[in-house]
Amino acid sequence: MRRIGIDTYLEPVIYMRSECHICRSEGFEAHSRIEVWRGGQHIVATLNVVHSPLLALDEAGLSEAAWRALGGVDGEQIKIFHPQPMHSFSYVRGKIFGKPIDAEGANAIMRDIVDGRYSDMEMAAFIATCAGNRMDTNEITAFTRAMINVGKRLEWGRHPVVDKHCVGGLPGNRTTLIVVPIVAACGLTIPKTSSRAITSPAGSADTMETLAPVTLDLARIRRVVEQESGCIAWGGAVSLSPADDILIRVERPLGLDSDGQLVASVLSKKAAAGSTHALIDIPVGPTAKVRSEQAAQLLGARLIEVGQALGIQVQTIVTDGRQPIGRGIGPALEAHDVLAVLQNLPDAPDDLRQRALLLAGQVLEMGGKAQPGKGMALAHTVLASGAAWKKFQAICDAQGGMRVPPRAAHQHVLTAAAGGRVVEIDNRRLARAAKLAGAPRAPAAGVLLHVALDTVVQKGQPLLTIHAESPGELAYAKTYVQAEQDMILIDEDR
Amino acid sequence: MRRIGIDTYLEPVIYMRSECHICRSEGFEAHSRIEVWRGGQHIVATLNVVHSPLLALDEAGLSEAAWRALGGVDGEQIKIFHPQPMHSFSYVRGKIFGKPIDAEGANAIMRDIVDGRYSDMEMAAFIATCAGNRMDTNEITAFTRAMINVGKRLEWGRHPVVDKHCVGGLPGNRTTLIVVPIVAACGLTIPKTSSRAITSPAGSADTMETLAPVTLDLARIRRVVEQESGCIAWGGAVSLSPADDILIRVERPLGLDSDGQLVASVLSKKAAAGSTHALIDIPVGPTAKVRSEQAAQLLGARLIEVGQALGIQVQTIVTDGRQPIGRGIGPALEAHDVLAVLQNLPDAPDDLRQRALLLAGQVLEMGGKAQPGKGMALAHTVLASGAAWKKFQAICDAQGGMRVPPRAAHQHVLTAAAGGRVVEIDNRRLARAAKLAGAPRAPAAGVLLHVALDTVVQKGQPLLTIHAESPGELAYAKTYVQAEQDMILIDEDR
Repeated sequence: MRRIGIDTYLEPVIYMRSECHICRSEGFEAHSRIEVWRGGQHIVATLNVVHSPLLALDEAGLSEAAWRALGGVDGEQIKIFHPQPMHSFSYVRGKIFGKPIDAEGANAIMRDIVDGRYSDMEMAAFIATCAGNRMDTNEITAFTRAMINVGKRLEWGRHPVVDKHCVGGLPGNRTTLIVVPIVAACGLTIPKTSSRAITSPAGSADTMETLAPVTLDLARIRRVVEQESGCIAWGGAVSLSPADDILIRVERPLGLDSDGQLVASVLSKKAAAGSTHALIDIPVGPTAKVRSEQAAQLLGARLIEVGQALGIQVQTIVTDGRQPIGRGIGPALEAHDVLAVLQNLPDAPDDLRQRALLLAGQVLEMGGKAQPGKGMALAHTVLASGAAWKKFQAICDAQGGMRVPPRAAHQHVLTAAAGGRVVEIDNRRLARAAKLAGAPRAPAAGVLLHVALDTVVQKGQPLLTIHAESPGELAYAKTYVQAEQDMILIDEDR
Repeated sequence: MRRIGIDTYLEPVIYMRSECHICRSEGFEAHSRIEVWRGGQHIVATLNVVHSPLLALDEAGLSEAAWRALGGVDGEQIKIFHPQPMHSFSYVRGKIFGKPIDAEGANAIMRDIVDGRYSDMEMAAFIATCAGNRMDTNEITAFTRAMINVGKRLEWGRHPVVDKHCVGGLPGNRTTLIVVPIVAACGLTIPKTSSRAITSPAGSADTMETLAPVTLDLARIRRVVEQESGCIAWGGAVSLSPADDILIRVERPLGLDSDGQLVASVLSKKAAAGSTHALIDIPVGPTAKVRSEQAAQLLGARLIEVGQALGIQVQTIVTDGRQPIGRGIGPALEAHDVLAVLQNLPDAPDDLRQRALLLAGQVLEMGGKAQPGKGMALAHTVLASGAAWKKFQAICDAQGGMRVPPRAAHQHVLTAAAGGRVVEIDNRRLARAAKLAGAPRAPAAGVLLHVALDTVVQKGQPLLTIHAESPGELAYAKTYVQAEQDMILIDEDR
């Protein structure tokens, strides 16, 4: 085996010479699926046939994904086989022909997916087959259970264990980092695991990482939660729902989000985290993930129904998703917003504060710490008193020590080309600008918004500041925002 | 650009260093889709990111598929862009959510597919979405038309132009090489284009190639047909249905054949070849492609209906697909069977002869050369008189000169482990054995069958002979047939 240094994204690829005796005698061709064994470990990889002296005849190259999955050292011996036939794909074929997938089928599919037996194409076919509204509640429940079965599961021996989650699509919406300390300060157990950005400029885990370590193992998560009642850790590090981690990375490039897959994804992670109660935030807006009130209602009903089947009490809350929350978009910029709210600074972004208090209040009511209608007031008290800030610092310490989020060295201000009233803000294009500036890879990079919907601006007034860690990335994001100035749409007549 | 010598099968892949300024400034990551321009030509390729010195920082490597599509020489300059958004995939998404695809959508999808804009995953999602029975006759017709629109189309200025086609799955079923000369000898126009093997041990084009050149361009096909009324050429060389050529290569690994896709595939090629009449052979058997009489009837009805919409008169014929036709499985072995039938040799395989006469008779009736019920007798006369053999030699000469099919140097005979009656023959495992022996890459390789259903054998009597061009391949196929002896199932009690 040889690490060949090619990153093929998700799919493990094995490279072999076309003239090597194995390709010839086994009848392997480009795109054959091959079972690769190293000691007692194995993966299934796709063959790319090499016609050049990139590899010696007795070498097999492994892509980064294959190398990660198999481990090992250059020069070690591996064994190669035709893979066992993959029976679970027959359930996918059956579904294509109209046969619902039962619990046995769902378990077999998820087992093969986490074992790496599905090629990218098989995964895409599976996702297309289950998208649309082709899964009923029974199927979604079966898949959610199957996703839980192939991952780890936390047990707390406490009741209730609460959680909050946002279905996403709204830049800067970092309420998690405020809700967790408020709720934990009230003594509720909230072991929050968050994701990193997949297509967005920052996930909650990325933002938290600028403030404290988030790559915690299960034992560490347990210690932090036992000590502080809450944590904000990166979920990917503990494989709570490894099947979902794989599926998401195929769904995104296809743009094939569906309610069924979203419900299974969210609830499998909540169940694996040991949650008994979960509040799900569904922002609605023309450039948010969910674009209509009706779609939000349907999604909410599914979440509640499947949650019930799994024994999780789910509540949903539909919120305003017409514009970003807070001012910063990008890990460190969002962290500064969070700190301002937690520290009760006078210039803290009020929309982030209000949104966090609303959600924290609901969670406190669900967890029995406040009477119905009294949760938000309690959350407000805990935040204003400094108890939430103290709890946040304690959580950071328990996770490995608090950090100061970085500031970007390179900045550029975009100003209004004309005066008027801000009538539309495009979440998606703002997110793209922040990514072009380097977020989330460069944690200090991103976009700082200076206006919100209904702000009245003068010509030449700053609309946003691009933050970048390198001059090249700054230039690149600058070109984009200048070409797409209407991502902040100003009505000159109003 | 640099030809990196990696065969990724269907998908064009571009390799660039992770630290190169393009990846960094453009935000390209592993699996990004990238538009690559060389002069006025372009392709869309998938990015694999290189972390090793496989490439210089200012080099982009191209996979074999990308290199073929783009042409060029090492060291030439290429330009790289973010691809235009691919609007046609929104029709696929719409279909997933239940919206039928109209003519405009079908045209857009097929155009993007032949332009290489679909990734493997997008193609797999499209195929899964249209499989099952999810396409009605209107949609199948729209897709067939769209597949015709993106390819070339032959016009003959003659009427009728006849064709025959087998939906496949039956080893050794090389009736084409006998039907074409019989029909052409009667003066009917039959410009037959055949495929090479995709997953089988031989396609008609592979078998024909051991007897004469088959890689003809359109002008040559035209000359052969004008002179001899018929040809047997490789369809892939003339891109009659390039979209289908691409789709088939994704459908096979997924095992997602569907009636709709099969109908579009077959009829787009018939229409592109300028056929006015087509006879479709549908073999039915437990290890054939179509497994029940009912499935054959449904498929037949679809073929006739869509044919009608396209102005092609389609007839279908359901035949016995319980065992291979003829004795040989593999290009040259099948060619020897064909020659024995055409030359009226006494030991010619009678099942191949009878099947070919049945089909030729039907085609002669469809083309108006024989009264209903009299076609098979006419075909018999033409074959027995030597006129078909003469015509076949003339077609071979016109295609570039007749060849003698090779014989394999290495052979192994499998004998019966016990006496009894042959009650089952597994088409699929026999095909696999022939492929392990080297077919179709090694044209002389394959399997020669010595028994058929209902043959009574003695213990030790030869069942089949493996033919191989190398001792290694012989050993490999031998191991397989010894382990899978029940691919020829013998009932000892009968």
